[in-house]
Amino acid sequence: MSMLLEFSMFPTDQGESVGDYVARSLEIIEASGLPYRLNPMGTVIEGEWDELLAVVKKCYERMAADCNRLSCSIKIDWRRNKSNQLTAKIESVEKRLGRKLRT
Amino acid sequence: MSMLLEFSMFPTDQGESVGDYVARSLEIIEASGLPYRLNPMGTVIEGEWDELLAVVKKCYERMAADCNRLSCSIKIDWRRNKSNQLTAKIESVEKRLGRKLRT
Amino acid sequence: MSMLLEFSMFPTDQGESVGDYVARSLEIIEASGLPYRLNPMGTVIEGEWDELLAVVKKCYERMAADCNRLSCSIKIDWRRNKSNQLTAKIESVEKRLGRKLRT
Amino acid sequence: MSMLLEFSMFPTDQGESVGDYVARSLEIIEASGLPYRLNPMGTVIEGEWDELLAVVKKCYERMAADCNRLSCSIKIDWRRNKSNQLTAKIESVEKRLGRKLRT
Repeated sequence: MSMLLEFSMFPTDQGESVGDYVARSLEIIEASGLPYRLNPMGTVIEGEWDELLAVVKKCYERMAADCNRLSCSIKIDWRRNKSNQLTAKIESVEKRLGRKLRT
Repeated sequence: MSMLLEFSMFPTDQGESVGDYVARSLEIIEASGLPYRLNPMGTVIEGEWDELLAVVKKCYERMAADCNRLSCSIKIDWRRNKSNQLTAKIESVEKRLGRKLRT
Repeated sequence: MSMLLEFSMFPTDQGESVGDYVARSLEIIEASGLPYRLNPMGTVIEGEWDELLAVVKKCYERMAADCNRLSCSIKIDWRRNKSNQLTAKIESVEKRLGRKLRT
Repeated sequence: MSMLLEFSMFPTDQGESVGDYVARSLEIIEASGLPYRLNPMGTVIEGEWDELLAVVKKCYERMAADCNRLSCSIKIDWRRNKSNQLTAKIESVEKRLGRKLRT
């Protein structure tokens, strides 16, 4: 009984380019071992509440260590008795349309 | 060194009206003792990461207990060495404009 | 048949303090004449799709004029045959709980 | 000078499964001809303000036609003089880490 969590997090006091900060978060996400998908506006991870929020907290602590202000947005979709939603949600839409979509 | 967290959470399988669910979350938020402000689209709470996310988790567990699908969005603004941002951010904008705003 | 739209918008390349930019958006929102409420994490406005998004676009154009990168998040709650949701949603929660909440 | 817009939109009064509604939005997005990427929590589109918001409005009008309440969240990242951000942002993170990520 897992959930999907999408989040994006970036400093707002470090100038226009924040790619280095995002890269560090991705290292933390990968190290968690949780299944994830990076997209151009955030990262979607699948897991239980505690393990998902632990990953986001690690990213926050790492980023807060060397910036003065940060912004984070999180979106959660929880559904009872569902798993593998990281792939199943997209497949469900593709099946309805009868074709592959850009992912 | 606190942060502001705004969140909204609602079931998506319980029909059009979700006020009862929202009311239960507000009871949990109030019981936390953390300073908060309810607005028409969410609730803003001020505190530390762990205590803020503990409140959101309690709301999630309570809501997940009797719905099959829920949606939650969270927005965080962290700033080093700042506190009382629940009131200070609005006052700062009002001071710049030289007048009171609708809040 | 109106909707609620909450949004926040800020430059991410102008350093830690963005109050001047937020103040300019509030001037645009006020000038629209649409009912609104400022909260510590955003502004909620009530109206029709076109007039709401026209306000957000004006804020975007004004901000993009003198920054190099900006972030904007928008949340919309549309409900058929409902109006005055700016006040009605909070009152509905307060009525359920039988007491006033912090707003 | 384009921007990235991620959005998700779903009815909250039509029960647990909303895949049919999401599929219709994807048809509208594809018909727009704008470059997009579907992810498990939303769709990211690249373009100018007016064309992006026109797509979201079409999805809204189509969905509002046969539901009574809907929720929509939109996130925008605008950056001066940048284009192809749909692919460039992910590549930039991969380049920093020196390896491919799950996308």
